[in-house]
This record gives sequence, C-alpha cells and structure tokens, in this order.
Amino acid sequence: MTSNASTPKTRVRRHPERASYDTAVVHAILDAAYVAHVGVIVDGSPVVLPYACARVGDELVLHGSTKAGILSAVATGTPICATVTHLDGLVLARSAFESSMNYRSVVVQGFARVVVDRDEKVRLLDAFVDRVLPGRRAQIRGMTDVELQVTQVVAVHLDAVSAKVRTGPPKEPKEDHQPDVWGGVIPLTLAHGNPEPDDITANDAPAPHFVEHRPAPH
Amino acid sequence: MTSNASTPKTRVRRHPERASYDTAVVHAILDAAYVAHVGVIVDGSPVVLPYACARVGDELVLHGSTKAGILSAVATGTPICATVTHLDGLVLARSAFESSMNYRSVVVQGFARVVVDRDEKVRLLDAFVDRVLPGRRAQIRGMTDVELQVTQVVAVHLDAVSAKVRTGPPKEPKEDHQPDVWGGVIPLTLAHGNPEPDDITANDAPAPHFVEHRPAPH
Repeated sequence: MTSNASTPKTRVRRHPERASYDTAVVHAILDAAYVAHVGVIVDGSPVVLPYACARVGDELVLHGSTKAGILSAVATGTPICATVTHLDGLVLARSAFESSMNYRSVVVQGFARVVVDRDEKVRLLDAFVDRVLPGRRAQIRGMTDVELQVTQVVAVHLDAVSAKVRTGPPKEPKEDHQPDVWGGVIPLTLAHGNPEPDDITANDAPAPHFVEHRPAPH
Repeated sequence: MTSNASTPKTRVRRHPERASYDTAVVHAILDAAYVAHVGVIVDGSPVVLPYACARVGDELVLHGSTKAGILSAVATGTPICATVTHLDGLVLARSAFESSMNYRSVVVQGFARVVVDRDEKVRLLDAFVDRVLPGRRAQIRGMTDVELQVTQVVAVHLDAVSAKVRTGPPKEPKEDHQPDVWGGVIPLTLAHGNPEPDDITANDAPAPHFVEHRPAPH
C-alpha cells in the first residue's frame, strides 16, 4: 500500500475530509468503472471525452483508434487527466445548500506512455476484456494484426492520484432539523439489465452468465 | 432548433455517423444528467472534476464553493469543457475489436460567465433544484445570504456543443458471424433505489414521491 498524499498536485482542496490517497481505495473505485473522462489540452483548450478504461497493475490503461484526436495528442507528451466517478445517491437535505450527492471518484493526473510493443499491447488489451467481462475472452477470437495496428493503447501511471468519497445521510445544522420535511438519500446504482442477444446469436448459445457474476460496478 | 454543425471545434471526428448537432438531442442528453465532467487548465495541465449540472435555457449551469479551485479558474476567463455521458449498455461482439458500449454523450466547450447578480443567482440555483428534484423546492427553505455568498454559479453557453450516440447491437464483419457465440447488448441504467430517510425524518413525513415521477435519467 503506497500513499499518494505527498503529491501536492492531487491534493483535494474542497472537502478534504472526503479525500483518500489509499491505493486500495483508489484501485477499488477504478476497478468498478467502465469509463473514465479523459481531459487533454488541444489548441490551448481543454477537451474532455469518455473512454473505456481498465486498471492494470499500477497503471490506468486507455485505448482508442489511432485516428482519434485526443489519444494522439497524448502520444506527443501533453499532460492528461483521467477522472472516474460513480454516482451513489442523491442526498436530500432540508435546504438546497446542504443537499448533495453521494459518490466515489478518482482523479489521475500525469503523462501517458504509448504502448508500442506488440506483446504488451496484446496483453493490455486482453486484460481490458478480462476486466470488463471476465470469461469473455475465451469465447471470442483474438486481435488481428490490422486491428492491433489501428488500435492505440496508452497507460497512465497511478502516481498523482486521489480519491474522493461521500457517503451517508445529509449533514445539516441543527436549526434545519425539521422532522416533517423528508430528508435522506435516494440511492443510485448503475444496473445491468437482462442481456439482449442480437439476430445472429443461436437460441442455444450460452448467455453471458459471467456478467451476472462480476462485482456490481455501481 | 439551431444547429451547431458549423462549429469546427466541436465537430466529431471519430465515428462521425454517431454525431448529432441537433439542439433537441443535445438538450435531452444534458437534461438527463446529474453530473458533468468539467475540464479546465490549471498550471498548464488539464484537471477534470465531476460537478452537478443543470441546463437552463441555452446554458449549462454549474455551481460550487467559492473556495473550489477549478470554478474559480473559470472566473478568470480560462476555457472550459463540460462533458456528460450516459452509459446505456455493454456491446458484446464476437471479437474484442468490434465490442463497444452504447452511450449518449455531449461535449460543451467555451468560456463560462460567472453569475454575480443576486436575483439571477437565486433563479439559477432554484432552476437547479427544480431540474434535479421537481417539487422539492416547495418543501425546503430558501438560500440564506451567507450561503449565496459562498456559492459560485457559472454558466456556459451552448454554442460549441456536440452530441454523440451509439445504440443497438454489435456491428461486425460477416466472417465474425458465429451463431454459437453469444453476441448482443447488456443494458446499463442508472437506477434509483428506494428512498432512505435519515434519523431526523418523522415517520409520517411524506416520502419524496416526486423522485419516482421524474423522467429516468438513465
């Protein structure tokens, strides 16, 4: 367990009591995420786009088309920020001011390295599939050479990283404690629906049961 | 209905067939969102943080503490990018390469104006509550002067904006059409759980039924 508390760049300034720099906390939040919002600077302006993400070891791995603008920008050594947020609930206080949301978020800052080695690229893309859908890789074909060529894989080391978590009911000053006004939490969860097979799938093809067994990503 | 297609900055380059610049599409995606990922440049590096958001007219409104770093940066005229993403499904093709996600996203770029007029600030914060929880405002007290003073409200005009939407089953080359391998979509939805009252709430306080009536934000 390393701590990242000493990185001034990632220190949480607002609501520091919600901050965590614990590796286990950071990893758990990243591992529950399908998507990170990735920010880079393009022509002097920030651009934020959603990317599928997967933590592999102490790196956050992203991939995209070699034609995609912002991952190409990363290859030139521009700084990157990747943020993951899980919304866990609406927090209803008895004032707008004290109302809030429950959430778990992680902010990763740094520079991404472009993965060029073919074997490493395959390994990271495999790890990607394994993380999103454990068991799926055994059912599908591998990457072709052409597919590998047009797929950009980048990895950001988890040095400058912080987590922020809010849980529990509203916190309000005593003068707002009016029992006749409902206060509390409306939980939010990213729910997985019933798998919908496409027209190609045979009736007896085994449904992706592994999805139900993977930990709920909230 | 205005179109934003003529803004080169926001033109979708990757998968342009998924792009939309239609105001109704953009508004629907923004209105279904609780949170935007907001990117600004701080000390030469991008920083992306989640913020509660609400569209009011043709602006995206954000608010935070006056002590919060990145909204203060916005006040100095630095460019901003606010991105909203709804994850709608995991798309399982019969190869990793063609696998994907269904989603609806909107990217807003521009400069934010800081709302300083007291009445407008109150109006926008009210609209905020109305958007997240219609009906709630009648049950809770208004903002105090002190609360207004420490709350920063900024608005970004929806000029340079684009939407991107993927729906439906996997799209694969014919040679991958293997009926014995399950392919299709696992739907994802942001589900609202049963409201959990806090310890202050009286047993007979009416539960926030309005939550169930609001359109599902996915």
